[in-house]
Amino acid sequence: MSKSEPSSSRRSLQVALDERSYPIHIGPRLLGDPAWLTPYLAGQQVMVVTNETVAPHYLARLREGLPAELTVRELILPDGESTKTFASVARIWDALLEAGFNRRCTLIALGGGVIGDMVGFAAACYQRGVGFIQVPTTLLSQVDSSVGGKTGVNHPRGKNMIGAFWQPRAVLVDTDTLLTLPERELSAGLAEVIKYGLIRDAEFLAWLEDEMSALRALEPQALAWAIERSCQLKADIVAEDETEQGVRALLNLGHTFGHAIEAHQGYGNWLHGEAVGVGMLMAVELSQRLGWLSRADVERTAAIIAAAGLPLTAPADMEVDDFLDRMRLDKKNVDARLRLVLLEALGRAVIHDETPQPLLEELLATFPRR
Amino acid sequence: MSKSEPSSSRRSLQVALDERSYPIHIGPRLLGDPAWLTPYLAGQQVMVVTNETVAPHYLARLREGLPAELTVRELILPDGESTKTFASVARIWDALLEAGFNRRCTLIALGGGVIGDMVGFAAACYQRGVGFIQVPTTLLSQVDSSVGGKTGVNHPRGKNMIGAFWQPRAVLVDTDTLLTLPERELSAGLAEVIKYGLIRDAEFLAWLEDEMSALRALEPQALAWAIERSCQLKADIVAEDETEQGVRALLNLGHTFGHAIEAHQGYGNWLHGEAVGVGMLMAVELSQRLGWLSRADVERTAAIIAAAGLPLTAPADMEVDDFLDRMRLDKKNVDARLRLVLLEALGRAVIHDETPQPLLEELLATFPRR
Repeated sequence: MSKSEPSSSRRSLQVALDERSYPIHIGPRLLGDPAWLTPYLAGQQVMVVTNETVAPHYLARLREGLPAELTVRELILPDGESTKTFASVARIWDALLEAGFNRRCTLIALGGGVIGDMVGFAAACYQRGVGFIQVPTTLLSQVDSSVGGKTGVNHPRGKNMIGAFWQPRAVLVDTDTLLTLPERELSAGLAEVIKYGLIRDAEFLAWLEDEMSALRALEPQALAWAIERSCQLKADIVAEDETEQGVRALLNLGHTFGHAIEAHQGYGNWLHGEAVGVGMLMAVELSQRLGWLSRADVERTAAIIAAAGLPLTAPADMEVDDFLDRMRLDKKNVDARLRLVLLEALGRAVIHDETPQPLLEELLATFPRR
Repeated sequence: MSKSEPSSSRRSLQVALDERSYPIHIGPRLLGDPAWLTPYLAGQQVMVVTNETVAPHYLARLREGLPAELTVRELILPDGESTKTFASVARIWDALLEAGFNRRCTLIALGGGVIGDMVGFAAACYQRGVGFIQVPTTLLSQVDSSVGGKTGVNHPRGKNMIGAFWQPRAVLVDTDTLLTLPERELSAGLAEVIKYGLIRDAEFLAWLEDEMSALRALEPQALAWAIERSCQLKADIVAEDETEQGVRALLNLGHTFGHAIEAHQGYGNWLHGEAVGVGMLMAVELSQRLGWLSRADVERTAAIIAAAGLPLTAPADMEVDDFLDRMRLDKKNVDARLRLVLLEALGRAVIHDETPQPLLEELLATFPRR
């Protein structure tokens, strides 16, 4: 991997989706520099939506990157997954209408995945679609939700049940924003980084095993490469399958189990990445029980998840049926067949419709709890 | 026009939008015949959404056209434009989630434009997009909202402010449903039929002048041809410009004025077609004052609008500023320039950004009220 690994800490890549293609710019000190935002603004009206945690750190710096002649409005929402609701999206629409913003306005999402998903969905449906720019400030959103155009909100009956596919005009990943990110959230983001290695790139997985401490120490070049490689792997998959009819489902490795954990524990109590980390380990364990992976593969997976600072056990209070009930409503579950993403090898994921129910239930019964 | 006019009362056309293309089937006795619905269902789950007025007439007949092995749910909403709100769409999502419907479910919109717009929007955002079929039961929805993929709901600050572009799998126009349509609503639908002639087809406009009484008497062949020609004209425009960046705006002839009337009077008090009828006459009058049309053109327009049974005067209580205030928020109004659809000739509409404000205000001040 080292020969293709860039020595620079500033990189750009393009997500190829025909007329909906857009660039991702990655590096330190992007915020506050007008060169990175202005090419992607349509009209003269801009609304920056962020949350109470991110605003004090980065809102002023972002605004320095917006030309003075624009009409700029700010909306600061509460932080956390529990605000990813219809009511929050309605607040964005109310603010846009109150400001008299037209169809050429641009929304800027400054924050993590919750802000990105909500603002993207608000943009998708405001006057049947306006432009938006993602400025993700968590590692998770930088490597995951800022690529692929999935937007939406949670419903009491399920995560991301209401939403749209809507691509941003551009994604701006300022790696300096990770300096203020809590360590627990950095680890949660690393779960998705590890996922890309597990599903599609064994070489990247090996690189991650070597560089995990550099990443947790926020070493700039290691960060830039981990983010770029993750975005590229996701972008390649999304370009193949924009609306998740096929290969894109591979990105859900660990998510069927993970969503069940998140939903059961109440959104926001477990971080998404923490739940996905455990979910990936469950999928790897199941793959081993199907005879596709060795015990050594399972141990390697557990080791890198642990090295990222992530939990390896499911919540103590989750029974087998708690998992099954949540998994039945999962969006990947088509016409009552349970569809899981499993691994044929480390670095090679497949979609599997035929897991015998007893094997699944045995996994759910025996997977470690704490 | 007579040589291209079909003698049959059953017709089909295709709306060409690449992989989002879909057919419109027009004719009597389509409802209840499985041949017309089943080709467009994806999975095994179907939800029929209709309203309290339409359900007693057509819901049972529609269900006869659905194979017995499907899981079918019904949702009956109140009737009227005032129900075209987020709360109604949320009810559809709640019902879908309660029934455990997955991403391969199909929604069927049985009713007028309000039902079609809401169900289309619900389908666009449920699990980021599921299929839907339009079964429009009013002339207005048959010739207008069932073609083009515009979906959405009203906001207290403006009509259709929240929505999405989402194409149906198919549109089923059973002309028998017009037999129970109130005469006032038939007239409202004829406003949009006349619109197609005014913006794009002078020959069709002349045919409508000849056949207006046959249409109001629900003569089947005249109806089928008026619907097909209207859908074809709209489909051609939509195919050129799916997301309303250019030529599609021509379809808004009369709508900037009309929306102002609807919003000022409170949605549902004036029918959409009635407001559009007056709005078209205002646009034609303004075109005449710009020197583009003759007085005779204005008289001809007024005559056919009157022959359709539509009002020719604006509401007595609407001042110039009542119009202007509402028009400023109109979606067609880009970066504070007022954009109007006007006529260069009967049958040839243009988008015009340069109407002098005094001329517009004079029109608004002098246009007849009642």
